[in-house]
Amino acid sequence: MTTRPPADIGMALEEVDTPALLIDLDAFERNLQHLAAAVAGSSVRLRPHAKTHKCAVIARRQMALGAVGACCQKVGEAEAMVYGGVSNVLVSNQVVGAAKLKRLAALAQQAQIYVCADDAGNVGDLNEVAAAYKIELPVLVEIDVGANRCGVQPGESALSLAQHIDQAPCLRFAGLQAYQGRAQHLRSFEERRQAIGQAVEQVQHTTNLMSQHGLECELVTGAGSGTYSFEAASHVYNELQAGSYIFMDVDYGKNLAADGTPWREFEHSLFVYATVMSRPNNEWAVVDAGLKALSVDSGLPQVADVPQAEYASASDEHGKVLLHDPDTPVRIGDKLRLIPGHCDPTVNLYDWYVGLRNNRVEALWPIVARGAGH
Amino acid sequence: MTTRPPADIGMALEEVDTPALLIDLDAFERNLQHLAAAVAGSSVRLRPHAKTHKCAVIARRQMALGAVGACCQKVGEAEAMVYGGVSNVLVSNQVVGAAKLKRLAALAQQAQIYVCADDAGNVGDLNEVAAAYKIELPVLVEIDVGANRCGVQPGESALSLAQHIDQAPCLRFAGLQAYQGRAQHLRSFEERRQAIGQAVEQVQHTTNLMSQHGLECELVTGAGSGTYSFEAASHVYNELQAGSYIFMDVDYGKNLAADGTPWREFEHSLFVYATVMSRPNNEWAVVDAGLKALSVDSGLPQVADVPQAEYASASDEHGKVLLHDPDTPVRIGDKLRLIPGHCDPTVNLYDWYVGLRNNRVEALWPIVARGAGH
Repeated sequence: MTTRPPADIGMALEEVDTPALLIDLDAFERNLQHLAAAVAGSSVRLRPHAKTHKCAVIARRQMALGAVGACCQKVGEAEAMVYGGVSNVLVSNQVVGAAKLKRLAALAQQAQIYVCADDAGNVGDLNEVAAAYKIELPVLVEIDVGANRCGVQPGESALSLAQHIDQAPCLRFAGLQAYQGRAQHLRSFEERRQAIGQAVEQVQHTTNLMSQHGLECELVTGAGSGTYSFEAASHVYNELQAGSYIFMDVDYGKNLAADGTPWREFEHSLFVYATVMSRPNNEWAVVDAGLKALSVDSGLPQVADVPQAEYASASDEHGKVLLHDPDTPVRIGDKLRLIPGHCDPTVNLYDWYVGLRNNRVEALWPIVARGAGH
Repeated sequence: MTTRPPADIGMALEEVDTPALLIDLDAFERNLQHLAAAVAGSSVRLRPHAKTHKCAVIARRQMALGAVGACCQKVGEAEAMVYGGVSNVLVSNQVVGAAKLKRLAALAQQAQIYVCADDAGNVGDLNEVAAAYKIELPVLVEIDVGANRCGVQPGESALSLAQHIDQAPCLRFAGLQAYQGRAQHLRSFEERRQAIGQAVEQVQHTTNLMSQHGLECELVTGAGSGTYSFEAASHVYNELQAGSYIFMDVDYGKNLAADGTPWREFEHSLFVYATVMSRPNNEWAVVDAGLKALSVDSGLPQVADVPQAEYASASDEHGKVLLHDPDTPVRIGDKLRLIPGHCDPTVNLYDWYVGLRNNRVEALWPIVARGAGH
């Protein structure tokens, strides 16, 4: 079930088969370096989220630039990262169910693994499996700072769960998971600033309360690509989980900077490469990348190199591209770069990255955690 | 990059790890038998679409019940089907680009392969590669019968392209591809009937014209699960490409029957199995199946077994389930079956089907064409 790569090393871009997932390596490396430089010298560490890239090569590149490790959402992702050379992983999520708990504990015998909890019963299960595997497992309390998804409430509820962890013989209370996911795509700078301002207050209140009860947070972790600068400046968070900054996507491209202009701190470095397979008339072309080649949950992709061409609808294996002008230079056999609407679920459709520099294939990186859902 | 199966043979349903893609084998087999019986004894053959299931085991089951072969959208899918024992494949799509054309021709040396075209230049490329591989390649003309996607116009344009194919020394004109994709999800029976009525007229006009010019159609192929009965009764189509009927999904579940009641000719047999991983309050639960475990392009999934629970939003790895009643029996660790919004792109996220009968795992079928996009 491993698909063949759509390219060979040294190939020209135009020879790459489609659909393919391309990385513009120059832009990608600038993104990596920019965020690394932004936190260098501060007390805030990067632990970029591997759910974006699912690729151990990329996680190790991030660590080579100073990242302390990786975040993962799934035990399967964490396994793929550890076996790919990433020695320090935070599972920024709850792990529920006997089969997964065993795998988590076994993995924690092989690498530094942190996990989150938001339920006392789950803490009991974590302690039980840690005992069975003879490990001390560090556990963070997840608090809901506005994402309205998982997590206990900040303050007393969080303290209570932290004490529960602290009292479990095979667990170690390791801090707070406080990710404000909803804030990442608030379009205006001021909205994002305010949302993270509120999250910071809730985190501060919670860490103060814990401190009064003798519980110190080794990690206070959160932040995404859209808000990282606020968490970094908060003096409360000490780790950042940004993931999408390495690639960007159409959705993130809609965020605005402080001055109201489009936010362009990071560059689009990820593209779906598609071939024009039909040009039935002067109104539209059809490309070979549809719902199985890109995720449309956060909007449609953009055609990168032909501004007047509009990717207007997706079916399972086809994308319909409106030309808006009969002279739009889009012919059968042409290959187009599409900027994905949403990078993370798009990456999860592919087994390989095709890394390009100066229009030549320089790297083929396996997406080792593709499909690692359980 | 091959993920481990989330289950073992003989396991109880409740032990299956999540997210997992389940098949209710009894319902699935009833669906297969129902469509096979509906065309048995008629002159219409089934060639079910493998883009739905991407699984050679299922394609062979369909053939064991009378299907003449399979349809595929991609050369990679066709390779996976042929190498999995399916000896007769229609690539119901254009194949563009040197790399894919070579693979198509090589595959046609190993099995009966048909392909579609809607462009004279592409016909020239098909002829060239057929010559290089010393094969005679059967090519269908794709006509646009209302899907407004690929295909030449019915009538003269189709005739002209058919003549072009007929005159190419290494190609054989093999008929018409005439799939009305837009009609499948028109909600009322009458709308679907009318849309296919128009398609049938266009096909009839085209085949008559071709016949007058000495060109006979070996295959006249189209139809999906939502309209198959109209094409089957048309006396014009001789092959049906329905795919989704084996599984169904929430979107197809919204179609109406002739009497205005919900259309229930086929049963839901495909489910995403998910674990409740967080119950932060009495309003909602969070399950471990989000955008990487199910496709939301055609709407959100439905919770199969807890009617009052509503899958209300999906993020990358999470699904938020509104309880609507504090007594809704959904606890951390519970496993829920979700009916996918859209079956085809959901299947493409998984490497394994977990086949269940009487709540026991009976089969683990590899989804061999998962990700076979190119």
